[in-house]
Amino acid sequence: MKYCADCGAAVELRIPPGDSLPRHVCPQCATIHYQNPKLVIGCVGEWQGRVLLCRRAIEPRLGRWTLPAGFMENGESTTQAALRETLEEACARIEIDDLFALVNVPYINQVHLFYRGRLLDTDFAAGAESLETALFGEDDIPWNDLAFRSVARCLEAYFADRRAGQFSFHEDDLAPAEGY
Amino acid sequence: MKYCADCGAAVELRIPPGDSLPRHVCPQCATIHYQNPKLVIGCVGEWQGRVLLCRRAIEPRLGRWTLPAGFMENGESTTQAALRETLEEACARIEIDDLFALVNVPYINQVHLFYRGRLLDTDFAAGAESLETALFGEDDIPWNDLAFRSVARCLEAYFADRRAGQFSFHEDDLAPAEGY
Repeated sequence: MKYCADCGAAVELRIPPGDSLPRHVCPQCATIHYQNPKLVIGCVGEWQGRVLLCRRAIEPRLGRWTLPAGFMENGESTTQAALRETLEEACARIEIDDLFALVNVPYINQVHLFYRGRLLDTDFAAGAESLETALFGEDDIPWNDLAFRSVARCLEAYFADRRAGQFSFHEDDLAPAEGY
Repeated sequence: MKYCADCGAAVELRIPPGDSLPRHVCPQCATIHYQNPKLVIGCVGEWQGRVLLCRRAIEPRLGRWTLPAGFMENGESTTQAALRETLEEACARIEIDDLFALVNVPYINQVHLFYRGRLLDTDFAAGAESLETALFGEDDIPWNDLAFRSVARCLEAYFADRRAGQFSFHEDDLAPAEGY
């Protein structure tokens, strides 16, 4: 951030009174521009023991497989975001179940939330941001071709819980590594 | 948002190609400025059956009681945010337990997360944003003098679970209403 989004003046990076962190502050209109982590929300959509994955048509990680997920929008709830992303990326209608996983990705200022869900039918298809969509059982998951580590952690926990016969909530923190 | 934070030109509100929602787009440098919900993170810190509340020294809701909570910062995890806010607002050291509640507040573009936690000692005190801090049992909670509805929902669920002898994860969506 170089310019004030409210008045267009060049901003300064300094610690406001009563604060402890440097912020982008406008010397002209005094607005403090806070920058905060973003929520990425997705869903593990299941149909008869298999889960729905999308192969990415966009960067980053074009061509790799992922769960339907994306940035939460203003004005929606976390479950609405999961429903919308699943519809947009996989043209799939789901019934949302419990929140399943929270994965912190602090080095890129993101928090990833994954719900469990059940596909209402198998009329899914690749959305604009997907090359293809498909259902995978645990043994078929393209583990070495997944787009993001948060998705891998979520799917590992999902199938482990499934084998154990009980789903519980999982929280995980990712450290920086090669790739995503 | 009126001006591009990257180049200072006046932004336009329009739907970018491939998108479905209006965004602030810079006609000069082509940057798309996305605006997304913010995470507010707090903790129900317990000490021998009572929970730690803070009376707010700042607006909004100055003078009302709340759980230690605040906006998550870039570069931290959700549990780090809960620890930091509890330290900043109540000068209290806690051990974080499971995530307890997620409350969607879509009409102000916020998602509130509350962890359960245990106070490590009773050397708490009002931080810069608090007028006072105190421990409350279920019967003493100032229910009519709480700052935010998300905090009320969280505390109601907390004490209900406590009575039932088992804590589980709670998710809730708030609709617009008078006040917070």
